[in-house]
Amino acid sequence: MSIDTPVELDGFRAVLSDLAAPDGAALAAASDRNGQLTKPPGALGRLEELAIWYAGWRGDARPAVTAPQVIVFAGNHGVAARGVSAFPADVTVQMVANFEAGGAAINQLARTFGARMDVHALELDRPTADFTTAPAMSEADCAAAMAAGWEAVDPGTDLLVVGEMGIGNTTSAAAIAAALLGGSAEEWVGRGTGLDEAGLVLKARVVAEGLARHRAVLGDPLQVLVCLGGRELAAMAGAILRARVLRVPVILDGFICTAAALALEKAAPGALDHCVAGHVSAEAAHGRMLASLGKEPLLSLGLRLGEGSGAALAIGVLKGAIACHSGMASFAEAGVSEG
Amino acid sequence: MSIDTPVELDGFRAVLSDLAAPDGAALAAASDRNGQLTKPPGALGRLEELAIWYAGWRGDARPAVTAPQVIVFAGNHGVAARGVSAFPADVTVQMVANFEAGGAAINQLARTFGARMDVHALELDRPTADFTTAPAMSEADCAAAMAAGWEAVDPGTDLLVVGEMGIGNTTSAAAIAAALLGGSAEEWVGRGTGLDEAGLVLKARVVAEGLARHRAVLGDPLQVLVCLGGRELAAMAGAILRARVLRVPVILDGFICTAAALALEKAAPGALDHCVAGHVSAEAAHGRMLASLGKEPLLSLGLRLGEGSGAALAIGVLKGAIACHSGMASFAEAGVSEG
Repeated sequence: MSIDTPVELDGFRAVLSDLAAPDGAALAAASDRNGQLTKPPGALGRLEELAIWYAGWRGDARPAVTAPQVIVFAGNHGVAARGVSAFPADVTVQMVANFEAGGAAINQLARTFGARMDVHALELDRPTADFTTAPAMSEADCAAAMAAGWEAVDPGTDLLVVGEMGIGNTTSAAAIAAALLGGSAEEWVGRGTGLDEAGLVLKARVVAEGLARHRAVLGDPLQVLVCLGGRELAAMAGAILRARVLRVPVILDGFICTAAALALEKAAPGALDHCVAGHVSAEAAHGRMLASLGKEPLLSLGLRLGEGSGAALAIGVLKGAIACHSGMASFAEAGVSEG
Repeated sequence: MSIDTPVELDGFRAVLSDLAAPDGAALAAASDRNGQLTKPPGALGRLEELAIWYAGWRGDARPAVTAPQVIVFAGNHGVAARGVSAFPADVTVQMVANFEAGGAAINQLARTFGARMDVHALELDRPTADFTTAPAMSEADCAAAMAAGWEAVDPGTDLLVVGEMGIGNTTSAAAIAAALLGGSAEEWVGRGTGLDEAGLVLKARVVAEGLARHRAVLGDPLQVLVCLGGRELAAMAGAILRARVLRVPVILDGFICTAAALALEKAAPGALDHCVAGHVSAEAAHGRMLASLGKEPLLSLGLRLGEGSGAALAIGVLKGAIACHSGMASFAEAGVSEG
């Protein structure tokens, strides 16, 4: 809360070294309340866990979701020039205009679930470098993008979704996953917006080149973001970290968002304890990425759009869970016999 | 729409013999629109199919969900006296009071997703007969309960959820499933609100006794409802059928709701084409029941509460799907390049 925005990677490292924990008293009180509500024990399944988890992070045994925020970050990728996407790089800036005009899927979903939506285009006229030939960004650029994400979070929000737009960014995300979790490039690349078979082979080769190029520094998760990331990925990581400082629960979106988040978890295990997985994407390796985080997705509906769309859809699940927890009567209040 | 409420089972049979179809022109126009929206083809996964399906039933290529309705039907079961539930039969009437006072899970979920909620208690002081000794209901009682369900549907609604409350009704639902789909009683019974191992063995024996008692008439799906059902199950079937006449899409809930719906499908294949499966319940055999219907659940969150809760949670998914479909800009409108 009182933490100033870090300006260098070391500032983010300092935040990661001293992370906020959930409120134990609120967790215990929420768990106790859950046991008294007019339903058979456990009958609301994951909704019960979600509500208690949310209560712990908010420090309130009977919380409400009143101010969800969706932030979409956009960035351009030098690696897109290698032909790794089914869409031209111009689409990034065109889609930012679409977000600003309210015409994209994420606009409709944010509105449906009562979320404020913000769009941050990150130096679209200055794409990252092609990571097969150089680090995608300088450390200063990466820190600036993380700081932009950090500052984009409304301190008054009580539930955060971060999404992205960036032609080429599933290539960046696949490279990050391979760097952080191991395995071959082939295991992590997918069809993104709709690559054909030849495109997929090319994409794996590009990822493998990137991994080989930066191998010496990939033991450091923040260097992985610097070398293989993109501004929108770094910004998502910054926003998720800010949410942790603010004790704001986060719903993770798909492949790209999860790759960005993974860098935080690898830098500081437990750094994503304030996050749930909103959905599992149709992008092939997303399920494996979530499994490595031990996070079971709330939804599995074959989405592969990004923008925060799957996570925004899961706002409804969170709202439902917390409405039940905080709004239901207890057995005693309702005069209902316990089994 | 102009069909009077049937008063006898034969009246419901007549409706089932001449079911409304979706609007082919709206389906085609919605599919065409879907292909023009600012997203890679197929990137919204099941949301795309849902929106097109919904458009077809509503006869509107660009529909909106503005008036969802949740109806909870409650009934008492003679078979509860056999000790097949972890809760006493008094809980049915107590929970009806809780629904009416706004204290149950379904009240919170209906409110969260902007649905009107109605509660219909069906002759709670006159439980059905213990189906191991006699048909659960007379044909007239079953038709009256179906008619109550039929009339409970608001003709102005545009999305229907039906839920239930009735101590003992997972026993009735298991017996219906076994009668309609085959297999042993053991395969269809589950723990309901929380039966122990001995209770589960007893429940299977009770279901087997009911199946043996009524074997001669179980080839007729409506007789299955008469002999093994309950008033709230018959009412759900009546409401789902009315929705079909009104071309109102329905979200199916869990084990009991799906068993009631199954009687319609077995009576007239395709009778549930206007229905999607809202979720798969933790009640063990629900997944198998949905598979027999060829319906993939939208959610899988371990719920086993009934009341319409899982289906109500899925209203959010439907609303999100239709908001994207009807609210997104096309490539041409937004000036976005197609891949």
